[in-house]
Amino acid sequence: MLFERIESKGLAHYSYIIGDGNQAVVIDPRRDCEIYLEKAARENCQISHIMETHRNEDYVIGSVELADHTGAEIWHADGQLDYHYGKPANDGQVWKIGRFRMQAISTPGHTPGSMSYLLYDPDNVPWIVFTGDTLFAGDIGRVDLPGLDIMKEMAGLLYSSLFDKLMKMDDGVLVYPGHGPGSVCGTAIAGRMWTTIGIERRYNPKLQYKDKSEFVAKIAKELERPPYFRQMEKLNIEGAPILGNLPLLRPLSPKSFAEKAKESIILDTRLEVGFGGAHIPNAISIWTKGVPSFAGWFLPYDKPILLVNETDNAEETVRNLIRLGYDNLAGYLAGEMHSWHTAGLDSEKTKMVTVQELCHQLDSREDIWILDVRGEEEVKNAQIPNTHNIHIAQIPEKMNQIPKEKSVYIFCGSGLRSMVVASLLQRQGWENVTVVLGGLAGWNSITCSLIRKN
Amino acid sequence: MLFERIESKGLAHYSYIIGDGNQAVVIDPRRDCEIYLEKAARENCQISHIMETHRNEDYVIGSVELADHTGAEIWHADGQLDYHYGKPANDGQVWKIGRFRMQAISTPGHTPGSMSYLLYDPDNVPWIVFTGDTLFAGDIGRVDLPGLDIMKEMAGLLYSSLFDKLMKMDDGVLVYPGHGPGSVCGTAIAGRMWTTIGIERRYNPKLQYKDKSEFVAKIAKELERPPYFRQMEKLNIEGAPILGNLPLLRPLSPKSFAEKAKESIILDTRLEVGFGGAHIPNAISIWTKGVPSFAGWFLPYDKPILLVNETDNAEETVRNLIRLGYDNLAGYLAGEMHSWHTAGLDSEKTKMVTVQELCHQLDSREDIWILDVRGEEEVKNAQIPNTHNIHIAQIPEKMNQIPKEKSVYIFCGSGLRSMVVASLLQRQGWENVTVVLGGLAGWNSITCSLIRKN
Amino acid sequence: MLFERIESKGLAHYSYIIGDGNQAVVIDPRRDCEIYLEKAARENCQISHIMETHRNEDYVIGSVELADHTGAEIWHADGQLDYHYGKPANDGQVWKIGRFRMQAISTPGHTPGSMSYLLYDPDNVPWIVFTGDTLFAGDIGRVDLPGLDIMKEMAGLLYSSLFDKLMKMDDGVLVYPGHGPGSVCGTAIAGRMWTTIGIERRYNPKLQYKDKSEFVAKIAKELERPPYFRQMEKLNIEGAPILGNLPLLRPLSPKSFAEKAKESIILDTRLEVGFGGAHIPNAISIWTKGVPSFAGWFLPYDKPILLVNETDNAEETVRNLIRLGYDNLAGYLAGEMHSWHTAGLDSEKTKMVTVQELCHQLDSREDIWILDVRGEEEVKNAQIPNTHNIHIAQIPEKMNQIPKEKSVYIFCGSGLRSMVVASLLQRQGWENVTVVLGGLAGWNSITCSLIRKN
Amino acid sequence: MLFERIESKGLAHYSYIIGDGNQAVVIDPRRDCEIYLEKAARENCQISHIMETHRNEDYVIGSVELADHTGAEIWHADGQLDYHYGKPANDGQVWKIGRFRMQAISTPGHTPGSMSYLLYDPDNVPWIVFTGDTLFAGDIGRVDLPGLDIMKEMAGLLYSSLFDKLMKMDDGVLVYPGHGPGSVCGTAIAGRMWTTIGIERRYNPKLQYKDKSEFVAKIAKELERPPYFRQMEKLNIEGAPILGNLPLLRPLSPKSFAEKAKESIILDTRLEVGFGGAHIPNAISIWTKGVPSFAGWFLPYDKPILLVNETDNAEETVRNLIRLGYDNLAGYLAGEMHSWHTAGLDSEKTKMVTVQELCHQLDSREDIWILDVRGEEEVKNAQIPNTHNIHIAQIPEKMNQIPKEKSVYIFCGSGLRSMVVASLLQRQGWENVTVVLGGLAGWNSITCSLIRKN
Repeated sequence: MLFERIESKGLAHYSYIIGDGNQAVVIDPRRDCEIYLEKAARENCQISHIMETHRNEDYVIGSVELADHTGAEIWHADGQLDYHYGKPANDGQVWKIGRFRMQAISTPGHTPGSMSYLLYDPDNVPWIVFTGDTLFAGDIGRVDLPGLDIMKEMAGLLYSSLFDKLMKMDDGVLVYPGHGPGSVCGTAIAGRMWTTIGIERRYNPKLQYKDKSEFVAKIAKELERPPYFRQMEKLNIEGAPILGNLPLLRPLSPKSFAEKAKESIILDTRLEVGFGGAHIPNAISIWTKGVPSFAGWFLPYDKPILLVNETDNAEETVRNLIRLGYDNLAGYLAGEMHSWHTAGLDSEKTKMVTVQELCHQLDSREDIWILDVRGEEEVKNAQIPNTHNIHIAQIPEKMNQIPKEKSVYIFCGSGLRSMVVASLLQRQGWENVTVVLGGLAGWNSITCSLIRKN
Repeated sequence: MLFERIESKGLAHYSYIIGDGNQAVVIDPRRDCEIYLEKAARENCQISHIMETHRNEDYVIGSVELADHTGAEIWHADGQLDYHYGKPANDGQVWKIGRFRMQAISTPGHTPGSMSYLLYDPDNVPWIVFTGDTLFAGDIGRVDLPGLDIMKEMAGLLYSSLFDKLMKMDDGVLVYPGHGPGSVCGTAIAGRMWTTIGIERRYNPKLQYKDKSEFVAKIAKELERPPYFRQMEKLNIEGAPILGNLPLLRPLSPKSFAEKAKESIILDTRLEVGFGGAHIPNAISIWTKGVPSFAGWFLPYDKPILLVNETDNAEETVRNLIRLGYDNLAGYLAGEMHSWHTAGLDSEKTKMVTVQELCHQLDSREDIWILDVRGEEEVKNAQIPNTHNIHIAQIPEKMNQIPKEKSVYIFCGSGLRSMVVASLLQRQGWENVTVVLGGLAGWNSITCSLIRKN
Repeated sequence: MLFERIESKGLAHYSYIIGDGNQAVVIDPRRDCEIYLEKAARENCQISHIMETHRNEDYVIGSVELADHTGAEIWHADGQLDYHYGKPANDGQVWKIGRFRMQAISTPGHTPGSMSYLLYDPDNVPWIVFTGDTLFAGDIGRVDLPGLDIMKEMAGLLYSSLFDKLMKMDDGVLVYPGHGPGSVCGTAIAGRMWTTIGIERRYNPKLQYKDKSEFVAKIAKELERPPYFRQMEKLNIEGAPILGNLPLLRPLSPKSFAEKAKESIILDTRLEVGFGGAHIPNAISIWTKGVPSFAGWFLPYDKPILLVNETDNAEETVRNLIRLGYDNLAGYLAGEMHSWHTAGLDSEKTKMVTVQELCHQLDSREDIWILDVRGEEEVKNAQIPNTHNIHIAQIPEKMNQIPKEKSVYIFCGSGLRSMVVASLLQRQGWENVTVVLGGLAGWNSITCSLIRKN
Repeated sequence: MLFERIESKGLAHYSYIIGDGNQAVVIDPRRDCEIYLEKAARENCQISHIMETHRNEDYVIGSVELADHTGAEIWHADGQLDYHYGKPANDGQVWKIGRFRMQAISTPGHTPGSMSYLLYDPDNVPWIVFTGDTLFAGDIGRVDLPGLDIMKEMAGLLYSSLFDKLMKMDDGVLVYPGHGPGSVCGTAIAGRMWTTIGIERRYNPKLQYKDKSEFVAKIAKELERPPYFRQMEKLNIEGAPILGNLPLLRPLSPKSFAEKAKESIILDTRLEVGFGGAHIPNAISIWTKGVPSFAGWFLPYDKPILLVNETDNAEETVRNLIRLGYDNLAGYLAGEMHSWHTAGLDSEKTKMVTVQELCHQLDSREDIWILDVRGEEEVKNAQIPNTHNIHIAQIPEKMNQIPKEKSVYIFCGSGLRSMVVASLLQRQGWENVTVVLGGLAGWNSITCSLIRKN
């Protein structure tokens, strides 16, 4: 028997493979799908079914790619959409996977046709429900994506899906959602990696709104929508181009890199300290682990992407970009910044301060304008006085609120997101930006007795 | 400065990358060419030139693939051929690679237009000559491939190339040929991995024939020509299809494998003992390291290839097959023979004896017919009396010389090639074949006092 | 936040690492413990606590090794034992791990002082209970190990631990046991990799005996006890020798191997087909994945161990042997059986038949004596008539029940365990043993119309 | 047949393994010696002999370690020394390695008893001479190490070794020395990775001094002697401690790291840009690839070493340190500088300028004092006017020549060594040091029209 949860880190995307008796099903596969092939093969299973919980919007779903390798059937949720591939699953429909039974349960709300899939074990015990983006550990799916005009309607549907369907199940049923903490699909997903109907019933704050109208009033909210969602939605209906295998990322010499850079976007995935030390002019900083979360916000789809990375092995970044539909990868800088400098090419810096330095400067300098780029939830705990908060996702549209003539100090949780924002500002002409290394985590670890006056 | 010899094991093919000052040249690249990209990148070089020493016939040259990645110029030898890509190199033509100079030297004989390339170091000292298949360590190129009708003419050309050109160089010049020992392109390539003009001048047996007519008489001989040479020659003029990256080999369940097997060739790359223990009916045995040497002899190009291998990682075999132009790879059996048997599918065995058992049986059994599949040179040292010699390469055409009614014992150097031959015989209906494990190496390690009478 | 379950395959041993706020706890670590160090490091945690759920008997616990690397505190269960290291945990004792709380809950029964550990999440919600060998998915701990004389007493304690403590928890609490299916510590552990109090309450068959005296009567049973348990119990109280790093397994040439073999045990980890094809005389067959389950049954502790394995990479086997306390590893045969044979050394075979061959022979041959080495549960489904069942674990003691003069056909689930048994019989002089490839899985996949008469 | 040159990068140390007929010899093995075991094993050879060309001084020789694994005989040169292991080789002594013959040839000069080893191929042709530190490609061994008082005497011995022994060999004999370019054992080793007697006879500049007294006068020079040579000489006579396997480097959390740092040396192996961006106070910068060349100059042997490195995989650095006898490795900072900052710990920066910035500042700033830390040969080509040259190796002793009150700009070939020097100066209180990124390579790639006046 085969059961594995495959996590795509950063996206916090969970897919699942369940196999028994030479047969396997994959739920919400990712695009670089060889991992499912290998796991099925090792257990001597053939992947026969691919189930989608909904038309995903935050990553390219790998259904078409995986079906191309396996010949598996693809079953959609959101069957009213004009899919170019696969078949729509119906409420109550049942599939057999070896000794297991899997049943579709219509749970609309996050999307108009979201499905959950309930897995029964060989003794026909309801065992696991795959809830997609309908129910998370400690959170529920957002309802604003189908359109603000029908947001309340969607919230009502979600209420029924949760209370009339999922919460009718036994407390012991395991809940396996489509995302873990860190996803853009849920704002308050809890640290419980595995959860149950019982735990959610009692502790999920959104499930405490037992009255439908209160529920709708509380949860029908517009949330941030990264620009890449539109591209994902399009690809996930049309079916993304077949990859076959991961593309080979070409190493580039500094000269070739500089030539190509004229019409490309440069993505620098080194950690904040290295980027601040020296980087290629106009490069966007997104550290390696941050690519799945932030690439979709700040990288365009219509330009080739060039990489600067810490080692010559860019596979992790290639995977993450491919999962977001960035297929136009032009190469990486061989020998990173060291080769750039020995080729006599010019670079830029980003100023950085430690939290100790920040503490010392807060009193003495009047010209410091502190920009906190953390999210709403995080800001509630902020302890640096007199800061200005613009969430990192809103930087492109609210950039003009940031003064160019002041010394802008940027801080976030740890310093990584701050460097992303610093790179965006530098591209747009801000000359006096400084990143606070360690961010709030560092700040909370020290004692800073000086408190800014104004 | 960058200098590496890249060996493709099994083929005993040597290619070379030389770089200096952000520029690099590759000589006779192989098709899975990412290794050159990586090595050039690590040294911050751009591959600007690809040199071919001749129209190769024993592997798919990677010029087109590598040029697709790098934009490098391709320079051919055998410029009279109708190449679909690249440009012909001329005798005496010079290229600059950083501080190095490389010069083309026309050295026909192996092919009508073979080129050697002489590399001068930064002080303009003749340093290394890349001789392709013109001169090897201890051997020279064969002259029978262009046609038996012009074989003597080619031998005369080769005489001039060797004595009037290469042997005019200083003794200290390093000789870097296109093949090492084990190649089908030279019968007597010596164990000297690196050699010099001086060493070859004194010790290469073919260079002791100083008289031209004697030289021609001695070396103009027809040698074995594996069937795949024709395919290679065609691909190397037309340019092989672009791969982009290695293909992803699909794992197959026993059931899928059995289905596809009906119209495919099964290649089993396990070692001889495992193959003999149990294998899928009709499988051809070629152990992993033997694939580059023997696949071209026994695998057809017009059928998909299915793999059975010792682990699930078939990358080495995929590389070797791709280098020989076998692009139609249908997948591999996940879980190898163990999964085959648990799926209730039937298998076959091949009988095996140790050299001790052979020794005991030689006197007592009259029905043993010993088949020695080693080559001419090896057979000279054979010590098993009363054997019948058919070189492994000639098995397909001379198979009818092998009795079906006797007990055929097959031996070679170590037992590996014997199992290849046993699998070929079993496919054609021989039912009583036995492989001698350890082969001549094993036989020579024991004392067998019993000597067969007849 | 860090949470990972580390599975040691084969042993089906689960250990857990939980970290938060630069601090981490490991529950029941294994001996090759670098994986915990790496995971903690990657999340910037220091392992501060090591918790043992009981004095383990089926593997060497890695507490001492891990504490040597980290300086972590070791907390024991079974505090009445004379441990040479660490401190005893007390019922109700609480530890803080970052924002988490962990509480010891005395749950004796499997051992006299077994502890479970209940983890509360940052909101103080009871989240996960680590039950060690007290409660598994679908099974409970065995009670016969402390001694048959006190077995019923232990069963009574276990009753209280289960019904008065664990079953008092909420249905949604996740249950993380010390073993998964396949362990020797539970006979009927279910395929549920993750389970909950609610699921176990309803579906665990042993928890349906709600009456204490019925419970005791049903579960107080003597089970098989592998001989290595005594060694484990000793090492786990004294503390196993510190390894520092995995030992470097020396490659050996056939000659060196043969020399050392005189005073060593040879463990051949190749798959069944290769072992049957040819193996070194006296070698014990345990395929790689079977080592953790079967090495402890059949390998002595007082002799060096020599390995024959499919590739030169024996790391997996080294890890598995080290986990069982086999520290005296003498090396492996470089080049496996191929090099053995080319060195002229003799080997043996084991006969093998496919299920098709078995089907054909059943009617025609009267001398076949079929030995089924599967366990009690498995045998219930056996469909081959007229077999003799001796569980693989009992082979050493019941070997004399197997006739030497008959043709012994051995079968199990898939053929792997059959080869283990065949190798044990061959070592003791049985000359006519045959392994049924594919075993019951294969048998069930075919239609065999011939039914044996007697 | 087995022949491989094993290069230890950075040290530019070459060792060799030659095997034939189940037997192998290793020349000048390194300490982390599993590579020889693996290569011999794969070819089914037993390492039977270990040959030392001289008592090495620039790395820990692995003879004792390798003999511990293999039982091989160790043969020394410099037999007059009081070795604690092995046997002295005698001039003319012959060993058989399979079909090869190897002969010792006394070639004193670099050390009083240096040996070369001449390998004859199976046809008894002199094939390869292993010259240790007597003859390199384009250079010869230094003669100052045995003592300045006997330097001229050693030079005379070296003259005889070269002209009366090595240069008497045939031009075609391959020369395999103990070092390649980059070693501290030769100042002018050429880029010829493989060379011959013929090439050296003609082109090695030192071999053009055919008159003995001229030769002695020219080559008897005192060269730099890194402080670690004394430690190496001691270890290489006594035999270094047995490692068994590479040590497991412990990951450390920032807190643990900071605690241990009080009594340790911190080695930061990140590239120059990252180190300049932020580093732990008092850390010494040596980039990963520079460790073998520079650790011995600047790291003491009497303190534990802590590592800060770019990724969590420090294996390369561990190997390099072990090769230099730094066995006291205390751990590495998990999560590198990012975790340091989020723990609220303070860091320092090093100023950096690009060559463009340098060009602009040269005219405008009077307070710049340019320190060129390159070697004598390199400085000849320097094009930055008005620089002060102190070779990096002499920084510790000549540090007081560097002004503390000026703005010290440091440059070298590429910027890497400059950062090493900057870190040394910062440790000693220099507050105003700036590294020129790209160094001379960068400088030469741009056009800087501004020329400094004074």
